[in-house]
Amino acid sequence: MPMPMPLSRLFGLLAAGLLALPATAVSPPAAPSPSDPAAPLTPAALAEARALRERALNDDTAYELIRSLTTEVGPRLAGSPGDARAVEWAVRNLKALGFANVRAEPVTVPRWIRGEARAEIVAPWPQTLMVAALGGSVATPEGGLEAEVVPVTSLDDLKAQPRERIAGRIVFFTGRMARSQDGSGYGKTVPPRGTGAAEAAKLGAVAMVMRSAGTSSGRTPHTGAQRVANGIPPIPALALSNPDGDMLERQLATGQPVRLRLVNTSRWDGEAQSANVIGEIPGRSHKDEVILLGAHLDSWDLGTGAHDDGSGVAIVTAAAKLIGDLKQRPKRTLRVVLYANEEFGLSGGKAYAAAYQGAIDKHVLGLESDLGAFRPFGLSARVGPDRLPLVRAMQSVLEPLGVAYTGTEASGGADLGPLRELGMPVMDLDTDAIPYFDLHHTAEDTFDKVDPALVRQNVAAFAAIAYLAAEAEGGFGRLPVAPKPAEQPKP
Amino acid sequence: MPMPMPLSRLFGLLAAGLLALPATAVSPPAAPSPSDPAAPLTPAALAEARALRERALNDDTAYELIRSLTTEVGPRLAGSPGDARAVEWAVRNLKALGFANVRAEPVTVPRWIRGEARAEIVAPWPQTLMVAALGGSVATPEGGLEAEVVPVTSLDDLKAQPRERIAGRIVFFTGRMARSQDGSGYGKTVPPRGTGAAEAAKLGAVAMVMRSAGTSSGRTPHTGAQRVANGIPPIPALALSNPDGDMLERQLATGQPVRLRLVNTSRWDGEAQSANVIGEIPGRSHKDEVILLGAHLDSWDLGTGAHDDGSGVAIVTAAAKLIGDLKQRPKRTLRVVLYANEEFGLSGGKAYAAAYQGAIDKHVLGLESDLGAFRPFGLSARVGPDRLPLVRAMQSVLEPLGVAYTGTEASGGADLGPLRELGMPVMDLDTDAIPYFDLHHTAEDTFDKVDPALVRQNVAAFAAIAYLAAEAEGGFGRLPVAPKPAEQPKP
Repeated sequence: MPMPMPLSRLFGLLAAGLLALPATAVSPPAAPSPSDPAAPLTPAALAEARALRERALNDDTAYELIRSLTTEVGPRLAGSPGDARAVEWAVRNLKALGFANVRAEPVTVPRWIRGEARAEIVAPWPQTLMVAALGGSVATPEGGLEAEVVPVTSLDDLKAQPRERIAGRIVFFTGRMARSQDGSGYGKTVPPRGTGAAEAAKLGAVAMVMRSAGTSSGRTPHTGAQRVANGIPPIPALALSNPDGDMLERQLATGQPVRLRLVNTSRWDGEAQSANVIGEIPGRSHKDEVILLGAHLDSWDLGTGAHDDGSGVAIVTAAAKLIGDLKQRPKRTLRVVLYANEEFGLSGGKAYAAAYQGAIDKHVLGLESDLGAFRPFGLSARVGPDRLPLVRAMQSVLEPLGVAYTGTEASGGADLGPLRELGMPVMDLDTDAIPYFDLHHTAEDTFDKVDPALVRQNVAAFAAIAYLAAEAEGGFGRLPVAPKPAEQPKP
Repeated sequence: MPMPMPLSRLFGLLAAGLLALPATAVSPPAAPSPSDPAAPLTPAALAEARALRERALNDDTAYELIRSLTTEVGPRLAGSPGDARAVEWAVRNLKALGFANVRAEPVTVPRWIRGEARAEIVAPWPQTLMVAALGGSVATPEGGLEAEVVPVTSLDDLKAQPRERIAGRIVFFTGRMARSQDGSGYGKTVPPRGTGAAEAAKLGAVAMVMRSAGTSSGRTPHTGAQRVANGIPPIPALALSNPDGDMLERQLATGQPVRLRLVNTSRWDGEAQSANVIGEIPGRSHKDEVILLGAHLDSWDLGTGAHDDGSGVAIVTAAAKLIGDLKQRPKRTLRVVLYANEEFGLSGGKAYAAAYQGAIDKHVLGLESDLGAFRPFGLSARVGPDRLPLVRAMQSVLEPLGVAYTGTEASGGADLGPLRELGMPVMDLDTDAIPYFDLHHTAEDTFDKVDPALVRQNVAAFAAIAYLAAEAEGGFGRLPVAPKPAEQPKP
């Protein structure tokens, strides 16, 4: 959870006061500060990071990568033909951009086929509703199903219902996601998506529908993954667009029984081979020490994954490429990891952590880009406590981008979760989650929604941070090792 | 075409200067003006109009009518079950609101069944495109069709192509509609929708696709009617959403041949009976003289016709109802006409004009609401030239709503076109067309997009204008009779 802006802005100014900023920086004048002979970043390294930042603000490599990925590959749901094309695309592009050690490391992914989903109100007033099957939904019986709707506000509300009220009916989760810069509304709305159908099935429901876990005001529902339910025969689970959720609520508000008819043909189809695609900018001295830059190559299938996570793929790739073009590369190796199947169970993140856990201590820091290409506003870090001055020095280079220091609660992103739990420090570039959750997991996540200026700002921040992380004396400490990796809610 | 704002604003101030405004009016102080013993509006009538305006700003009758129509009826394409339900709804509601002479006058309408439309790019890079059949489109052959795409920028560009470039291919109209307050971009973009498929068929094209004639940035295409092509075997015609038009253009921009696969199952299904629904607020003295308040009851079928034209239905109904509730009704009769099938050939507008042409001279003035419930900014009038001072006096009552005088180019709306061509004077309340054309004829035209405050402002303007028109001494003159009624492009 990012800190409130006034405090984080204050920290940003404090950090800025510790360092000499270039004359062009949009930042208050630096206050006099004690010299620090043990500073982990040399003036030359800070100057190089500022130059990278400015170069990135005039470079459209990332924007063109998003255009290419969305136009030539498009949707790339794990295990689909688009997923396989995305792996080829990533290997080809990393090689073309001059990355070393480019490889596709196989990852086994589940395969789920969407099919078609339709919903209509049958009574009291017939209306067609726009819906999308949630990831992993089973099909309705041949010919569909029809039942009365029971609205519930939350998982707790559902669990409080007597079985006779739920059995044989369709449960409707009515919760609406709130918009906020930090995206905190998502975590509050997503639990019914994860386990709502399973909980409804326990009480005998024949299907589950939910208001989308997302803030789009359009009729494009937000899909997303459910958690696997153990031992309960699954029921179909569909997301309604927000306007269609409104329609259903308006009919329910009249007090008359509301009957829905649902048809869904999605199904599981075993497993498929995908891959984590990896490319490196080798360090000039500490080649075995890695700064990991992550993003996920897969996407949901309704849009073309322009923001989620085409932009992340492009941002980390373009940032590393800019660093690779330097006359003198930083000490450590930058490793770009484009993960397989983040959306449907973190297959790539888990596979990478399993494959590299023997080298976990060489993973000096990890950053992921998986919140789209929107306005950056904060840098947070989960690192060794004595390394926070280093983080603030890094953040000071981002001040001209409007990036404040936002605290110590960084997550590192979903794909990096397993590595973080093994002790790898992480940072987050916090970006505006309001527009992101308007199109997240919907058909609207397309290239036309990408602003090249915002893409450049994200690349500038990633390039500066990655460079400094690869150059910083002494690294970032280690995090406590979690007892056992657990699934993280993903943004 | 509304006049440029600075000039129209100037006219508004001039008009305001001719009249005493109430102290609460948001308007510059009135300049001294000569008294006008022949003024067609008494101070009492003007005061009553201002009171109506204020009452309307505190009344949600119209908003609740939109809620009811969209929730309980929903889509109501001419000849569909929803259309029949809409006629029942309108008769029931006009009666419940106290209208006199409520009746449904039968209108024969064409019936077209949408079916399902799908489009995908087959090569060079497979992508699913979101499309909607244009109204009146024929089906593709069983199993669909596949062909190379030829982009053209306009009808003229198409006509300049050699037959061998078009024959056997799919013509793609690339023109993009510009946003503007007066909606003038629509008229420039809509011609390919009207006749593009017919012109392409003349050159041997197998289908036509077009970038939507609308400004939505979402993946919800804008449908709309084609004109009937005489003598040319029709070809399927589909609208692409703007983002999907972008995708197709990006693939074409690579210079590689682009192949599309189209499936469309729409079809004609003869004719059906619908109705113009009419209700009246009888005048206190000149009962046979009519102020006609129009809107259309039908809608396209992708959304629920909340703005187009549910809002119009509600605005004219609520405005007339407010006038009907007065202790002293105005001299003339207010006639609310909720037209059948505006969208698909103006069946209701033509039928009304045919049925009432003998009484055309008793149609003193007509106004239609068919641009959604958005911010009103202008009043224009097409009336006898000596009646413009009366128009300006009426407009002055709308000044507190931000409504300026916008000139003499009023159209009266599509349904009133046939009456205007028979000589009936018309006025237009000009409203902001920018948000309107973002959702016009798309799935997004739903109740959640309706702002109750803007609905009230529209009702306030219609109520004041309708009251003053029904009270004004001497009427509005007559317009020259057009040689022969022609089809009007409809907003």
